[in-house]
Amino acid sequence: MSTTPPPGTIGVGLISVGWMGRLHSRAYNALPLIYPELGITPRLVQAADTAQAGRDYAENVLGYKSTTADYHEVLANPEVDVVSICAPNFLHAEVGIAAAKAGKPFWIEKPVGRSGTETAVVEAAAVEAGVATCIGFNYRHVPAVELAKKLILDGQLGRITNVRGRFFGGFSSNPEDPLAWRFVRSLSGSGVLGDLMGHLVDLMHYVLGPISAVTASTGTYLTERPALPGSATTGLAPVENEDYANMLIRFHDSAVAAGALGSLEASRIAVGASSDYGFEINGTEGSVRWNFARMNELHVALTRTGPFVGFTTVLANSAFPEFARFQPSSGTGMGYDDLKTIEAKKFLLAVTGGPAESSNIHDAVASANVLDAAEESATSGAWVSLPVVAGSTAAFAK
Amino acid sequence: MSTTPPPGTIGVGLISVGWMGRLHSRAYNALPLIYPELGITPRLVQAADTAQAGRDYAENVLGYKSTTADYHEVLANPEVDVVSICAPNFLHAEVGIAAAKAGKPFWIEKPVGRSGTETAVVEAAAVEAGVATCIGFNYRHVPAVELAKKLILDGQLGRITNVRGRFFGGFSSNPEDPLAWRFVRSLSGSGVLGDLMGHLVDLMHYVLGPISAVTASTGTYLTERPALPGSATTGLAPVENEDYANMLIRFHDSAVAAGALGSLEASRIAVGASSDYGFEINGTEGSVRWNFARMNELHVALTRTGPFVGFTTVLANSAFPEFARFQPSSGTGMGYDDLKTIEAKKFLLAVTGGPAESSNIHDAVASANVLDAAEESATSGAWVSLPVVAGSTAAFAK
Amino acid sequence: MSTTPPPGTIGVGLISVGWMGRLHSRAYNALPLIYPELGITPRLVQAADTAQAGRDYAENVLGYKSTTADYHEVLANPEVDVVSICAPNFLHAEVGIAAAKAGKPFWIEKPVGRSGTETAVVEAAAVEAGVATCIGFNYRHVPAVELAKKLILDGQLGRITNVRGRFFGGFSSNPEDPLAWRFVRSLSGSGVLGDLMGHLVDLMHYVLGPISAVTASTGTYLTERPALPGSATTGLAPVENEDYANMLIRFHDSAVAAGALGSLEASRIAVGASSDYGFEINGTEGSVRWNFARMNELHVALTRTGPFVGFTTVLANSAFPEFARFQPSSGTGMGYDDLKTIEAKKFLLAVTGGPAESSNIHDAVASANVLDAAEESATSGAWVSLPVVAGSTAAFAK
Amino acid sequence: MSTTPPPGTIGVGLISVGWMGRLHSRAYNALPLIYPELGITPRLVQAADTAQAGRDYAENVLGYKSTTADYHEVLANPEVDVVSICAPNFLHAEVGIAAAKAGKPFWIEKPVGRSGTETAVVEAAAVEAGVATCIGFNYRHVPAVELAKKLILDGQLGRITNVRGRFFGGFSSNPEDPLAWRFVRSLSGSGVLGDLMGHLVDLMHYVLGPISAVTASTGTYLTERPALPGSATTGLAPVENEDYANMLIRFHDSAVAAGALGSLEASRIAVGASSDYGFEINGTEGSVRWNFARMNELHVALTRTGPFVGFTTVLANSAFPEFARFQPSSGTGMGYDDLKTIEAKKFLLAVTGGPAESSNIHDAVASANVLDAAEESATSGAWVSLPVVAGSTAAFAK
Ligand SMILES: NC(=O)C1=CN([C@@H]2O[C@H](COP(=O)(O)OP(=O)(O)OC[C@H]3O[C@@H](n4cnc5c(N)ncnc54)[C@H](O)[C@@H]3O)[C@@H](O)[C@H]2O)C=CC1
Ligand SMILES: NC(=O)C1=CN([C@@H]2O[C@H](COP(=O)(O)OP(=O)(O)OC[C@H]3O[C@@H](n4cnc5c(N)ncnc54)[C@H](O)[C@@H]3O)[C@@H](O)[C@H]2O)C=CC1
Ligand SMILES: NC(=O)C1=CN([C@@H]2O[C@H](COP(=O)(O)OP(=O)(O)OC[C@H]3O[C@@H](n4cnc5c(N)ncnc54)[C@H](O)[C@@H]3O)[C@@H](O)[C@H]2O)C=CC1
Ligand SMILES: NC(=O)C1=CN([C@@H]2O[C@H](COP(=O)(O)OP(=O)(O)OC[C@H]3O[C@@H](n4cnc5c(N)ncnc54)[C@H](O)[C@@H]3O)[C@@H](O)[C@H]2O)C=CC1
Repeated sequence: MSTTPPPGTIGVGLISVGWMGRLHSRAYNALPLIYPELGITPRLVQAADTAQAGRDYAENVLGYKSTTADYHEVLANPEVDVVSICAPNFLHAEVGIAAAKAGKPFWIEKPVGRSGTETAVVEAAAVEAGVATCIGFNYRHVPAVELAKKLILDGQLGRITNVRGRFFGGFSSNPEDPLAWRFVRSLSGSGVLGDLMGHLVDLMHYVLGPISAVTASTGTYLTERPALPGSATTGLAPVENEDYANMLIRFHDSAVAAGALGSLEASRIAVGASSDYGFEINGTEGSVRWNFARMNELHVALTRTGPFVGFTTVLANSAFPEFARFQPSSGTGMGYDDLKTIEAKKFLLAVTGGPAESSNIHDAVASANVLDAAEESATSGAWVSLPVVAGSTAAFAK
Repeated sequence: MSTTPPPGTIGVGLISVGWMGRLHSRAYNALPLIYPELGITPRLVQAADTAQAGRDYAENVLGYKSTTADYHEVLANPEVDVVSICAPNFLHAEVGIAAAKAGKPFWIEKPVGRSGTETAVVEAAAVEAGVATCIGFNYRHVPAVELAKKLILDGQLGRITNVRGRFFGGFSSNPEDPLAWRFVRSLSGSGVLGDLMGHLVDLMHYVLGPISAVTASTGTYLTERPALPGSATTGLAPVENEDYANMLIRFHDSAVAAGALGSLEASRIAVGASSDYGFEINGTEGSVRWNFARMNELHVALTRTGPFVGFTTVLANSAFPEFARFQPSSGTGMGYDDLKTIEAKKFLLAVTGGPAESSNIHDAVASANVLDAAEESATSGAWVSLPVVAGSTAAFAK
Repeated sequence: MSTTPPPGTIGVGLISVGWMGRLHSRAYNALPLIYPELGITPRLVQAADTAQAGRDYAENVLGYKSTTADYHEVLANPEVDVVSICAPNFLHAEVGIAAAKAGKPFWIEKPVGRSGTETAVVEAAAVEAGVATCIGFNYRHVPAVELAKKLILDGQLGRITNVRGRFFGGFSSNPEDPLAWRFVRSLSGSGVLGDLMGHLVDLMHYVLGPISAVTASTGTYLTERPALPGSATTGLAPVENEDYANMLIRFHDSAVAAGALGSLEASRIAVGASSDYGFEINGTEGSVRWNFARMNELHVALTRTGPFVGFTTVLANSAFPEFARFQPSSGTGMGYDDLKTIEAKKFLLAVTGGPAESSNIHDAVASANVLDAAEESATSGAWVSLPVVAGSTAAFAK
Repeated sequence: MSTTPPPGTIGVGLISVGWMGRLHSRAYNALPLIYPELGITPRLVQAADTAQAGRDYAENVLGYKSTTADYHEVLANPEVDVVSICAPNFLHAEVGIAAAKAGKPFWIEKPVGRSGTETAVVEAAAVEAGVATCIGFNYRHVPAVELAKKLILDGQLGRITNVRGRFFGGFSSNPEDPLAWRFVRSLSGSGVLGDLMGHLVDLMHYVLGPISAVTASTGTYLTERPALPGSATTGLAPVENEDYANMLIRFHDSAVAAGALGSLEASRIAVGASSDYGFEINGTEGSVRWNFARMNELHVALTRTGPFVGFTTVLANSAFPEFARFQPSSGTGMGYDDLKTIEAKKFLLAVTGGPAESSNIHDAVASANVLDAAEESATSGAWVSLPVVAGSTAAFAK
C-alpha cells in the first residue's frame, strides 16, 4: 500500500472502465454504506482506459480524480493503494503481473489467465510481491450460496454424495452474432470453459472443496460467425473455442465433500437459458438447490421420511449470511450488484489485514487448472488428476 | 426549489433515518451513476431524526452535512431543495403539509395519510404550494411491471377481462410479536390495507387504470399481542386493525381496463409467504403474471391456440423498460434498492420540470380513497363507488 | 336396488355415452381391481344415448349388454341397480327426477340443475325416493385435496383465516369457436358459474365448510360467437351467460373455517390457462396450496419462524388418502380418471350401506345455491346470505 | 402364437403378480377401451407366482382363469398367446429365454438381464424363436416425451448440441431400510444403473439415437444396511452395488443427435427427490425439458432472440402424441398407469404384425451395453465405445 493515505481511506485505481470497471467502482462507493463499522473509505483516484468514452465516464460519472489511456500510470500512481483490473481477458495476466510488481494489491476479474500456466505466472508475481488479491468470483457471495456452504460444513446434509452444476447461458446462441474476442483463442483462451465453467469450478471449490480429477468433453456447434467489421477477414470466420463443455469430477480426500462425485456443465448457446447458473448438491441427510436466475432463493430438502418429503423454496432472510446487510426482510431481493459490494468488502478486508474472507490468486489457479485439465481430458479421453493448490480457500474438511 | 444551488445540484433534506430514509439516501447517491445524462447531482444536506442513532448514521455513514432532532429545521434549511419524508406513518401527513408550506417538493413514503381524508389534506397543501411530489409506490418501477403495463397499453393482451392481485406477507404471522405501532389505529390507521393493499391498489391504477368501485371484507385473526415493553398496559393488548382484506373491484370507463373485473387481497399473517406480492392479468388475447418475490421475471401467455399454449417464464432483459440501465443482460438480476433509484429519478425529473414519470400526491389520494371505500364496504356490505382523482397518473384509455 | 342381483354384483345403467359416460363406465370396471376387498362387482347392463355412435360405443367398446335411444328404458330395466347420469346439462334434472322415481340410486354429473331451484327439485325427488346419490364433484377425491382437508380438520393449519380459489380454463378463449349449448342460457343455465365455479364451491364446502354469504360480480367478454352450423341464426349470435365470475365469501359459524374470508374466481376464457384449477388456504399456523394442473402435488408451509420458512413441494405419497391404492410410491402420478374410480367407490359404498364418503344431492343444492346467490349478488351488488343445506357433507367444526 | 384363439382375442399369461404384474394385467384390460379400433381383446388366461397371495390376487381380483406356482406351466399353456414377465430381476433372463423357447412373444420388465451379456442371451433366444418382444421402458410413451422426440426429428430444435438426463429417486435414502435384493449383486446385478439408469439410457436412445461411448463414475454411500430378517447374517450387511452413477456420453454418427454431448446421472438415495426423472435437451434452435414428476408438462423454448426468450410451460394437449386417446383436453392429466396401456398396445401391435412402435429385445441389449460400459469405465477411467445394436429402435438420422 502506498505510504500515507488518510486513516481509513484507501486510494483506488481502476484499469478498464467497461461493465465490470463501473461495477467495481460502484461497489467501492457502496462499501462504507453497507459496512460502515469497518471504517474503510475507498477513494476513486485514477482510471485507465484506451477508449476516450471510458475515461470520460470514469471522470464525469464515476468521479475518478484523473484518468489515463495507459494503465501503467495507474500502477505508478502513489495515491493508488489498490487496483481493480477489469480489462479484457487477454490483458489480465499482463496487468496483474504489473500490479504485483508495483506492489499494489489487486482485485481482478476472471479469468485471470487464459490458462492455468498463465494464471500461475500471475500467482508467482503476487506471492513474490506479497500483495493481497481478490478474484471476481462473485457467485460465492450470494447469501443463498453462503448458506448452502454453511449447511454443508455444519453437516446438515450428512455426507455429500454428489453434485450437479451447470452454467448455461444463451448469450452466444445467435449464429449471426459476429466473431468477437470471445471466440478467438489468442484473445480469450478457451471458450465457455474460461467464461462460465471457471465460475462454476470456483463455486464447487468454495462450497465443496478441491476437485481432484476430471474427465471432460467439449463441443463447438456454431462453428463459424461473421467476421467483425473492420477485421482482416470478410464473410464467415471460424469459431476457435468450445460452445459447450461437460465433465465428471471427483474431490480430494481433504475436501468437505471427499468421496462425492458429480458433473459440471457449461454452455453459451443454450436457447431459452438466461443466466441459468446453478447447482444441486445431495448428501445422505439432505439436499440443496440454487440457481442464479432466482438468486434470492435456496431450495432445501432436509427430510428423508414422513409425509412431507420434498424441497422447500426458501427466500433469503436474515439467517442467510450477509443478507441482513442489504435487506431487512425476506422476499425483498438483493441484486447482482450487491455481490460486488460484498466482494469489495472481502478484498479490502484482505488488504487491511482483516479476516480472510476473500478469494485469492490461488483460487484462480485452482479453477484454471481444472479448466486446463478439462481441455486435456477432452482430447485424451482420460481422467486428469489435479493437485491441491496451496493457499486456495477451497472448503476443506475440518 | 431554494434559490441558488450550484447548477444541476439539488440539496436533499431527509426526515427520518430508518430503513426507508437510508434507502432514499442511497438512491439519491446512485442516481448520477445510473442516469448521468440528466445532469442531476443530489447533495445530502440535512437529516432529521429524533433518535441519536439515526442522526449519527445520517452524518457518519450517509454523509449528510448536518442533522437535527427537529424536522422543521430541515424544512427551513435554505440549502434543502427537496425533502424525503420517511417518518413513521402517523407523521406523514403532518410533515407533508409542513413541507408543502415550506415550498419544498417532497418524496414521501406510503401511506401518506392514515385515511383518504388525511391524504386529501396533504394533497391540498401540495397543490396550493405548487410543489412536485412523489410517493413511495416503488413496485411501479419494476421493469417487468413496466413491460406488463406497456403490453396492455399496446393492446397485446386484447381487451382486459380480469385481474387477481395479492400482497401476502408473513411478517406479522407470529402472535408473540408485540403490539407495535402497526397494530394501533391512532398510529397506523388501517392495518394491512394501508400497509400492503395501498401498494397493490396503486399498482392496479398504474397498470390498469382507476378503480371505480369496490366491495370488501376484512378480518383480524391474531386479535391480541403482547403489549410493547414500556407501554402503559402489560400482558396482552388488542390488535386494532385488520390482518387480512379482500375486495372485488371494477374500473372506470376511462380506464385502460374498462369493463374488467377483479379481486385484490392482502394479508400480513400468511404463513409461508415472504413478499408474495403479485398480480395476474387476463385479456382476451393474452395474460401476464408477476410476483415481487421473483421480481425479475414476467410470465407471459400470448397464444390462445396451437400446441404451445402456456406461460413463458421471461427474465427481464433489455426490452424491459429501465432494465438496461442497471444490468447488461437477461438473468442478471436487479434488486429492490434499484427501484428506489428509479423512483428518485422520476421524482427529480418532476422537480426539475422533466418528463412526468413520477407518481404524485393525487395517486396517494386515489389509493387511499380505495382503502377507505374498502373499510366502508367491509362494514356496510355494499359496493362503494369512487370518483376519478384528478391529476392521478392512472392508466387511462387513449 | 332391484330385487335379486347376484351377491356383490351391481347392475349399472348409463345415460349418455359421451366423455363422462365412458369415464363412469371405466371407473365401474376399475373399482374391483382397486378396491377388491369391498366385494362389489359392477356389471354394465344398459346404456342410453340418442346418438347411434354412442350406443355402438357402449355396446362394442364398453361392453354394455344392451343399449337404447330412450333413457327411460334404462330406468325401467330391472337388471339396472344404479344409474350414471352423464347427459348434457339441460337433461340432468329431468333424468335425475325420473331416476329417483324409478327408485334407482344415481351418480349424476354436475351441474345437477341449471339453478338452485332446479337442483332442489331433484333433491326432493331423491329424498322422497330414499335413493342414494353421488355428484360428479371429482376434485374432492384428489389425494392432495384429501390431505389438505385432513390437515385442516386436525388443526395443523391453526385457525383458518382466508382462502383463494380459482378455476381458470381457456377452453372458451377462442372467439371463433361457435355458440355451443354452453353459451345458451336455456340449455346451460349460467356460464362459467355452473361449469367451473360449482366445482370450486363444492371443494370449498368439502374442505372448509358451508359458505354463509357471497358478494359477486360476473362478466361476459366474448359477447358474440358464430352460430352453430344448422341453427336458425347465421352469422354471429349473442353469448348468453358469463365468461368470468368472482366473489367474496364468508363461512357459517358451524364451518371448520368459521370466520375465514376468501375469494373465489372462475374463467373460461383465460389465455394460457389449462385446467388452472386450484386453491390456497391460509391458517394461523400454516398454509397449503394445490392446483389440478399439478394434481399430484401439495404445497405445504407449516413453519412461521426460523431460516426455512416457505412452501415445500410435496408429491403425493402413501400418507395421502387413497394414493396407495393407485400407486406404490411418491412421484408416480395418478391421473384424472383415477378420481372417478374413487368416486365410483364412494357412490357404491353409499348404495350398499357402507361408510358415508360420497357427495350427495344436498351437496349439489348447496353448491347451486351459492351460484344462484352469486348471480343475484352480481345484479344487486349486495351480499346474499345462504342457509346451511341439511344433509350436505360440508366440513363442519367438531 | 398358439393355434386357434378366437378372432381378435389374445390369450395372456402372466409371470409374477407384483406391482408390475398387476399393472400389466390392468393395461391389457384397458387396451380395448382405449384402442377399440384395433380389434384386439386380451384375455387373462394364466398367472404364475410362487406366493399364494399373488396367485389369489390374480384369480380373484385380476380374473385370470387359472394360476400356478410354476411359471413353466404358463409357458406351456396352449391358451396363452403372449406372456408378461414381471418377475424379480434375477429371473428375467431365465424366464425370457424359456418364453422364447416356448414360442411365446413376451413383454418383459426391465432390466432384462443383470448385464449386457445376460441380456444378449435372451436376445439370441428371441431372435432364434422369432417371437415379438417388448421391454418395460414405459417413459418412452409419455406424450410429452413423444412430442419432444417429434420436435427433434422434425428439426425444430435445430442441431442437437447437448443433453442432461437424470433419474433421481430417494427410495433407498433411508440407511435403516434393510438389505433387499436390490442391493445384492447376484440378485440384482448393478444398483441404480440397472434400476434407473437403464430407463434413462433407453429414453436417450429413443429420443436422440444410439450412444456411441461413455465415461462414467459410480459410488456407494450407504455402504451397509440391516440384513433382511430371516437371512443368514444378522446385524449390518454390505451393500454390493452403486447408489449413484454419472456418465458423459457421445452419440453415433447415425444418431439424430450425432455430435451432441451430454451427461446422464442416476441416484437412488437423493433426499427430497421423488421420481425426479427427467431430461433437458438443447439444440441450436431450441430447447426442451421434461420431468416425470410433472409428467403432463413439456417445457419448450423455441425463440433465441426478442423480448420473450424463455421456457413455456406447456400442458399435454391433443397435439401431444397419444394424449387425446386418454383425455379430451389440456390440463386433465394422464397417470403413470396409462403409459402401460400404451405399452400394451405397442406390444400387441408388434405381436399381431401391426406398425412397429414397440421397443424390443435389441433395445434392452442396447441399454444394457451402455450400463456395462459405464461399469467398465467406472473402473478403468477410460471412455468405452459401443457399437450400434442391430434391430434397436433408437432414433436414427434420416
Ligand atoms: N465476474 C463476472 O461474472 C464477470 C466478469 N467479467 C470479466 O470482466 C472483464 C471485463 O469485462 P466487461 O467489463 O464486460 O468488458 P467491456 O467490454 O464492457 O469493457 C472492457 C473495457 O476495457 C477497455 N480496454 C480495452 N483495452 C484496454 C487497454 N489496453 N487498457 C485499458 N483498457 C482497455 C475497453 O475500452 C473497455 O472499456 C472480462 O475479463 C470479463 O471476463 C465480465 C462480466 C461478468
Ligand atoms: N415503499 C415501501 O415499500 C416501504 C415503505 N415504508 C414506509 O416508510 C416509512 C418508514 O418506515 P421504516 O423506514 O421501515 O421505519 P423505521 O422504523 O426503520 O424508521 C423510522 C425512523 O423514524 C424516526 N422517527 C420517529 N419519530 C420521528 C420524528 N418525530 N421525527 C423524525 N424522525 C422520527 C425513528 O427514529 C426511525 O429512525 C413508513 O411510513 C413505512 O410505511 C417502509 C418500508 C417499505
Ligand atoms: N365432473 C366433471 O369435471 C365433468 C363433468 N362433465 C359433465 O358431464 C356431462 C356430460 O358431458 P360430456 O360427457 O363432456 O358431454 P359429451 O358431449 O361428450 O356427451 C354428451 C352425450 O349425451 C348424449 N345425449 C344427448 N342428448 C341425449 C338424450 N336425450 N338422451 C341420452 N343421451 C343424450 C350425446 O349424444 C352425447 O353422447 C355434462 O353435464 C358436463 O357438465 C363434463 C366434463 C367434466
Ligand atoms: N418399468 C418400470 O418402471 C418398473 C419396472 N419394474 C420391474 O418389474 C419387476 C417386478 O417388480 P415389482 O412388480 O415391483 O416387484 P414385486 O416385488 O411387487 O413383485 C414381484 C413378484 O414376483 C413374485 N415371484 C418371486 N419369485 C417368483 C418366481 N420364481 N416365480 C414367479 N413369481 C415369483 C413375487 O412373489 C412377487 O409377487 C422388476 O424386475 C422391476 O425391476 C418395477 C417397477 C417399475
